[in-house]
Amino acid sequence: MSQIPRIVIIGAGYGGIVTSIRLQKELNYNESDVTLINKHDYHYITTHLHMPAAGTDDPKNARVDISKLIDEFKVDFIKSTVVDINTDEKKVILEDGSVSYDYLVIGLGGEPETFGIPGLKEYALSIRSINSVNYIREHIEYMFAKYKNDESRTDYLTFVVGGSGFTGIEFVGELADRLPKLCNEFNVDPSIVRIVNVEAAPTALPGFDPELVKYAMDVLTEKGVEFMISTPIKECTTDGVILANGEEIKSQTVVWTGGIRGNSLVENAGFEAVRGRVKVDEYLRAPGFDDVFIIGDCSVMFKEDGKPFPPTAQIAMQQGVACAYNLAASIRGEKLKTFKPEIKGTVASLGKGEAIGVVGERKIKGYTAAVMKKIIDIRYLYNIGGISLVLKKTRL
Amino acid sequence: MSQIPRIVIIGAGYGGIVTSIRLQKELNYNESDVTLINKHDYHYITTHLHMPAAGTDDPKNARVDISKLIDEFKVDFIKSTVVDINTDEKKVILEDGSVSYDYLVIGLGGEPETFGIPGLKEYALSIRSINSVNYIREHIEYMFAKYKNDESRTDYLTFVVGGSGFTGIEFVGELADRLPKLCNEFNVDPSIVRIVNVEAAPTALPGFDPELVKYAMDVLTEKGVEFMISTPIKECTTDGVILANGEEIKSQTVVWTGGIRGNSLVENAGFEAVRGRVKVDEYLRAPGFDDVFIIGDCSVMFKEDGKPFPPTAQIAMQQGVACAYNLAASIRGEKLKTFKPEIKGTVASLGKGEAIGVVGERKIKGYTAAVMKKIIDIRYLYNIGGISLVLKKTRL
Repeated sequence: MSQIPRIVIIGAGYGGIVTSIRLQKELNYNESDVTLINKHDYHYITTHLHMPAAGTDDPKNARVDISKLIDEFKVDFIKSTVVDINTDEKKVILEDGSVSYDYLVIGLGGEPETFGIPGLKEYALSIRSINSVNYIREHIEYMFAKYKNDESRTDYLTFVVGGSGFTGIEFVGELADRLPKLCNEFNVDPSIVRIVNVEAAPTALPGFDPELVKYAMDVLTEKGVEFMISTPIKECTTDGVILANGEEIKSQTVVWTGGIRGNSLVENAGFEAVRGRVKVDEYLRAPGFDDVFIIGDCSVMFKEDGKPFPPTAQIAMQQGVACAYNLAASIRGEKLKTFKPEIKGTVASLGKGEAIGVVGERKIKGYTAAVMKKIIDIRYLYNIGGISLVLKKTRL
Repeated sequence: MSQIPRIVIIGAGYGGIVTSIRLQKELNYNESDVTLINKHDYHYITTHLHMPAAGTDDPKNARVDISKLIDEFKVDFIKSTVVDINTDEKKVILEDGSVSYDYLVIGLGGEPETFGIPGLKEYALSIRSINSVNYIREHIEYMFAKYKNDESRTDYLTFVVGGSGFTGIEFVGELADRLPKLCNEFNVDPSIVRIVNVEAAPTALPGFDPELVKYAMDVLTEKGVEFMISTPIKECTTDGVILANGEEIKSQTVVWTGGIRGNSLVENAGFEAVRGRVKVDEYLRAPGFDDVFIIGDCSVMFKEDGKPFPPTAQIAMQQGVACAYNLAASIRGEKLKTFKPEIKGTVASLGKGEAIGVVGERKIKGYTAAVMKKIIDIRYLYNIGGISLVLKKTRL
């Protein structure tokens, strides 16, 4: 067996894939064995998933083969599902085996947080993987087909989106673009179709500039989206949702985007976590472990005002870069670098040609923001896969 | 009100649409009022429905706007659903009104015949309209999406087709072409997917030449279709089908093509019918009525050997031509012509590039038969809508 340290990265999301790619550059020949483990043999671009979920873009554009991203001479890849982490024996337990590590990077994705609302887990759909968005898209089309075979069932054509955060807003924007096309395809009167966006908080897009929030809601309302803000969902049933005010919305399609938590595997492995997220140290390590780094959805860091940073692709990627640096430093016995997220900007798409955002200090909206969104997407593709990946995956 | 006789045609299938188009030519100006009544504002090419059902062709290619086929100066069109026929008052009762007739042409489509097999009506799908085939297609895609979210459920990927008659065979041929593409799209191992064609009779395609039947089954078996011939279905359930031999096939998709009967409306209206089909006289009239013509699925005629002609598009179209002639003759008090079906040939498609058939006395198979099938399709489009319709609806 090799005497060189073994780095195991679990999860090939934003954090895991960037760590892997950066390690290829940081490490010298034979300085470490690096193994990336992921459930699928592809990486997916989570920030794009709202489009194939609505059917406005091909799921292939949100999926990149891992073999195209990593250099298999430098990084080993195992396609398997992690079922447990044994920190005592320094082993990752897979559904079909186990892998030992000297250093572990946990880059596992999060899970929908349903806040204990009854029925959401059972009956609501969620935007969380290529398979889940294929399901949502097919489900939506199926509802149109079902309606045409029983026109008394208007609940087939009521689409409830729970949550007006980033994902919820981006998803209703795409839905509002897509459903008129399905009406045309299935010969359905568009006036029967409803998109209802329900949010418990007193505003959509909490944390965003109120002027931009208003702009976003105006654009989406104009496209036919109905907003119910300050309206908690009390229960999700097979018939639709029951709101806290007692009102029922009959719907066969409830998509829950209202919250995300870390991966329950992290809790089960014994890390100190709140909702599956571990408060990592300034070097991105789990408290009490100098051989376990946690990045992305399963980590949490706090702003100066004491509020947590939201789990975004932007931060996960920055963590990946820092994590690769600190892994190399750990192996070499060098000093680790402290990490602090740097928020360069945030842009939320509102469907084709419309978006809102903040870049640096500047507020942007409309077409400018939509173009900026595209630039951000392209920059990410370029960073992980070069110009050829940009050309392959970008719908201009 | 006009004193000229009113002809009402109900149903714009092969029989009804050909009758309407021919009447436009047969009748002189102001010789008769002609009204065509149909549930949809489009005619559909029933013999094509197995393709959009499987997803191998766009449903638009199986649908033609009625306004493109009839001359609205000569034939009135009413989009409505017929709920009853009152022969005493000579009225057609619509869901939203009624229309009087002097001469009635019943060209209503048939209904699936389930032979009393429990559960088929409730749980099996059938290829009978644009809406129903859109449903089947979306249902099939949905099953792939569902499987990818729960890979223990292989019953999502078992597709049972009940009946190996004309429609059943043509449908499994298309399915066998389509499913490998869905495997690719949804990243599914094709070896998990099953297409099972179950037939109670001792042969597939009863009435066809045995050599051609063997060829068809060999082609389809090669494409992955499993045949269970001489195997009656005892029951259809929410879990799949239970065969007469006690075996259960777990499947979430059962498509029933095993039989067709006439329209129950014809029985309810008091016509003497067996399974919704009326034995019409040699002039295509209902027995005892010289003002009611019945053509297509609701009519039945017998061969010299005493067996009934099957309800085919070919016969319905010939009946349409004869019916138009006899209507004009009736109005003019002239002698009616007797009608006898003339079977020019029959070609069954087996998916892309493969078919079997008999044209005149000649047996054809393979690519030749596939081309012949195309020619038959094109000839029909040309007959009803000219070259522009051929160009619009043909996938070459």
